[in-house]
Amino acid sequence: MAASFKSDEARFKIALCQMLVTSDKERNIVHARKAIEEAANKGAQLVLLPEIWNSPYSNDSFPVYAEDIDAGGDASPSTAMLSELSRNLQITIVGGSIPERSGDKLYNTCCVFGTDGKLKAKHRKIHLFDIDIPGQMTFKESLTLTAGDSPTIVDTDVGRIGIGICYDIQFQELAMLYAARGAHLLCYPGAFNMVTGPLHWELIQRARAADGQLFVATCSPARDTNAGYVAWGHSTLVGPFGEVIATTEHDEAIVIEEIDYSLIDQRRTFLPFQKQRRGDLYQLVDVQRRNTELTK
Amino acid sequence: MAASFKSDEARFKIALCQMLVTSDKERNIVHARKAIEEAANKGAQLVLLPEIWNSPYSNDSFPVYAEDIDAGGDASPSTAMLSELSRNLQITIVGGSIPERSGDKLYNTCCVFGTDGKLKAKHRKIHLFDIDIPGQMTFKESLTLTAGDSPTIVDTDVGRIGIGICYDIQFQELAMLYAARGAHLLCYPGAFNMVTGPLHWELIQRARAADGQLFVATCSPARDTNAGYVAWGHSTLVGPFGEVIATTEHDEAIVIEEIDYSLIDQRRTFLPFQKQRRGDLYQLVDVQRRNTELTK
Repeated sequence: MAASFKSDEARFKIALCQMLVTSDKERNIVHARKAIEEAANKGAQLVLLPEIWNSPYSNDSFPVYAEDIDAGGDASPSTAMLSELSRNLQITIVGGSIPERSGDKLYNTCCVFGTDGKLKAKHRKIHLFDIDIPGQMTFKESLTLTAGDSPTIVDTDVGRIGIGICYDIQFQELAMLYAARGAHLLCYPGAFNMVTGPLHWELIQRARAADGQLFVATCSPARDTNAGYVAWGHSTLVGPFGEVIATTEHDEAIVIEEIDYSLIDQRRTFLPFQKQRRGDLYQLVDVQRRNTELTK
Repeated sequence: MAASFKSDEARFKIALCQMLVTSDKERNIVHARKAIEEAANKGAQLVLLPEIWNSPYSNDSFPVYAEDIDAGGDASPSTAMLSELSRNLQITIVGGSIPERSGDKLYNTCCVFGTDGKLKAKHRKIHLFDIDIPGQMTFKESLTLTAGDSPTIVDTDVGRIGIGICYDIQFQELAMLYAARGAHLLCYPGAFNMVTGPLHWELIQRARAADGQLFVATCSPARDTNAGYVAWGHSTLVGPFGEVIATTEHDEAIVIEEIDYSLIDQRRTFLPFQKQRRGDLYQLVDVQRRNTELTK
């Protein structure tokens, strides 16, 4: 985290860019660029993009639209644009996600860029979306994608941010682990659908915020009823009491709202869950952090 | 659990008895008796009572209304009534909670009675309600009460039930631990207030149900705006997709609804969270169970 960052003083604007995603990758990149520029012009210091914003959300498309993020430059025009914009506009970008090619594997990957344009973190979706609700919704990301193997939390100019992608939000342990590591904000690019959206989208993000007493921001693609996978939309910002601060419907929109981190301390003073937890009865083990400590 | 219990076949009616609680203990006991009898007459096989149903909810009242549950008989008229009714009516009763005196300590305690009238489990509230929201809600149970030191899960004729009392529901770890121990249903007698009720009551019970993919039932006292502590009401039954199956407003009411445990398996097949968890990244340790296994 920037040495000057003080969470109890921090107020800034976040933008959730709920974009329509098409099958034209070049258009998607131009479209995302415009949305980010508009958000920055309106004062956003943190911009969040949707899950899989440069490609249709389908197993057929992932290999075709995938980019080699580590190679960078021409091998990854989507993230090159994010890097350029974050530096030029001096904003932090949580770049939704794109299909990533790495060797012979594909991932669903979120890149976080700092105000200097540098790639600060790369989160590969940990929990792949494999569900089967007969007659309603069937999808199996694991047919083409490989799961990431690490939680991702990153210190930025706008606080300590934990990253999850879509289905990752269903696993409360990940959010608990981020809260325990000191996150102020959890960002979930996500494309819930017309079945899981009404059921769980708002409920789960409010629950993660209320339980962790921190901010949660989600960003979905806009709904395209002609697409193979129809997104729920409803990009939302939730505060540390589980209250919806800002949201939108399913059309294209840029949600811009202020985040005030001082609310986190206030909520935790009112309801001191952290001190009241019963470590003599239950403990969440953060396996990677424990292993790091054991090898020190 | 009864050897004949098969969760995938089990359907039964639950009753949530949202009762008005007065300062007249004898009246409260008679009143609870009537509510339970009415619920059983309407086919309920499981009856849930509110938190602190035999006494006003106040630190002044707890010592005065407390009973010695272990001594039983005349030392605990409230639980003697529950035992008698569960045997006579052949129902399972999750007896809300009452102030319990044990030696020189007081607890907020829930007793579970089987269809044979026997006390099957006794849960002492683990997380005491100590909160301070200036100008809105201040309460400190720990001024008079001692916290329990054990999770409580019990096999009954109507499934495996995890018990929490009110503020216990705010701690997701307890619900996770019960789910991991195979609970079908979590019962939370609770008396949220006019501040925490609108904020968290429905949200948190829906989240516990959706995350654990199990049933959650809550039961509150009816609202008495003349009481020192004004309860939110809204006793509710939630299903394993986080859906509200039945609820009520704040007046006296007996909510009766069918529980169908086959929905649990169905939900878990559709969304196989349990198999998809990443034990390589996070693990919830059930401390007492681990210690039991270590000493075997």
